[in-house]
Amino acid sequence: MMADGLLLETLLEDPVFSAFVFYSVMILTKMVLVQSWTTVIRFQYRVPALPEDYQKPSKDPDAKPKTGYSDLEGRYQENVQRVRRLHLNDMENIPVFVILSFFYVLTRPSLTVAVWHFRFYLVGRVLHSIVYLLALQPHRTIFYILAHIPFVSILLQLIYFVLNL
Amino acid sequence: MMADGLLLETLLEDPVFSAFVFYSVMILTKMVLVQSWTTVIRFQYRVPALPEDYQKPSKDPDAKPKTGYSDLEGRYQENVQRVRRLHLNDMENIPVFVILSFFYVLTRPSLTVAVWHFRFYLVGRVLHSIVYLLALQPHRTIFYILAHIPFVSILLQLIYFVLNL
Amino acid sequence: MMADGLLLETLLEDPVFSAFVFYSVMILTKMVLVQSWTTVIRFQYRVPALPEDYQKPSKDPDAKPKTGYSDLEGRYQENVQRVRRLHLNDMENIPVFVILSFFYVLTRPSLTVAVWHFRFYLVGRVLHSIVYLLALQPHRTIFYILAHIPFVSILLQLIYFVLNL
Repeated sequence: MMADGLLLETLLEDPVFSAFVFYSVMILTKMVLVQSWTTVIRFQYRVPALPEDYQKPSKDPDAKPKTGYSDLEGRYQENVQRVRRLHLNDMENIPVFVILSFFYVLTRPSLTVAVWHFRFYLVGRVLHSIVYLLALQPHRTIFYILAHIPFVSILLQLIYFVLNL
Repeated sequence: MMADGLLLETLLEDPVFSAFVFYSVMILTKMVLVQSWTTVIRFQYRVPALPEDYQKPSKDPDAKPKTGYSDLEGRYQENVQRVRRLHLNDMENIPVFVILSFFYVLTRPSLTVAVWHFRFYLVGRVLHSIVYLLALQPHRTIFYILAHIPFVSILLQLIYFVLNL
Repeated sequence: MMADGLLLETLLEDPVFSAFVFYSVMILTKMVLVQSWTTVIRFQYRVPALPEDYQKPSKDPDAKPKTGYSDLEGRYQENVQRVRRLHLNDMENIPVFVILSFFYVLTRPSLTVAVWHFRFYLVGRVLHSIVYLLALQPHRTIFYILAHIPFVSILLQLIYFVLNL
């Protein structure tokens, strides 16, 4: 009989599984940073998530809000929408990629091949996030595709694998 | 060679892994309850998800809908929006927390420390959901932060762990 | 001491775990197909995700856009909204089902029972997706419920299991 915890430690002795854990934590950290950035942008442009978050105006009639949004509402909305949509885009892609990567590790890929898949995805998504926020095209599409190649590659390998299971 | 299933049973012999399974099922159950509540609210306020769900009005001209929304549309919309946004908030946070917790178990934390992380998160999110639906501030922010502390703590420990992997 | 990778290979020797991997890859593939379909529909109806994606009109004054949306904006919007909502519905349900299924495998269900749970869910969700896009009611509700039965069954079994852990 195994001692407690020995099993889980054995998992990390597998280099492909270790690489999976490393890159998954990295990409999820990137996702959490985008989520935190949404909160920062919300405060900066005073666009609360819910009605009860609206603060009452200052009693001093001469006081101006740090960032008013009377005449610039459209632009503020766009800024908030942009980071929210990036986060939604992350939610659509990253958790599914992490789950598929876990299954991919079970197919026993070579370490080099697996690491390159994870690395391309991480780099592609990080660059995609940056140019998404900067509204740069066609860069956004290019980096989206860069991240999409390992995603589709892993999915196709998995379909082939499970059909032969 | 191991008998089938022995391996998976061994996983649950690990007390930290068992705690992870327990608290993950609990928090996901909470999330599913919020999702079910969205459906209840949709029926109650007759706000269907898609156009084909609108029911034809009753043939009896004196019949009134149980819950009309001609003159109260704004309030109904807000009620439906509130529970939908809570569910979206859950989707943004809970699956990522469960995946990160799985990696966290691999870092071999002590049982006590791990359980307190999971417990704070569960209690924080449950209270957050309740005050979210009741539109109570600053309680919502307080409970959000309560759940966010173990989330960030686990993430930071994981980053430290994988950088030393 | 185990050789690298032996552990992960042992996981797939468990027939219930294998079935879990097979059906999870299948349902996630369906989800990715819906996501790809959203992109196709976006291009077809020229409803870009972000402002910078709008293409400038052709210089040739007689050229007509392949699919204009001046007079049919409402209908196009609806088509794009429909597939986006289906994808959102997938995101709300499928990743949570896959995570819960993983925990369900740990409860050591019989192979037959587990496979029927996974099979009903997969068939229910695939049919749900088709009739969702075709706007067919009450079929959509029927297939949603068909997929919801194994979902709820797995959740209830898990709650019972972890309360006795």
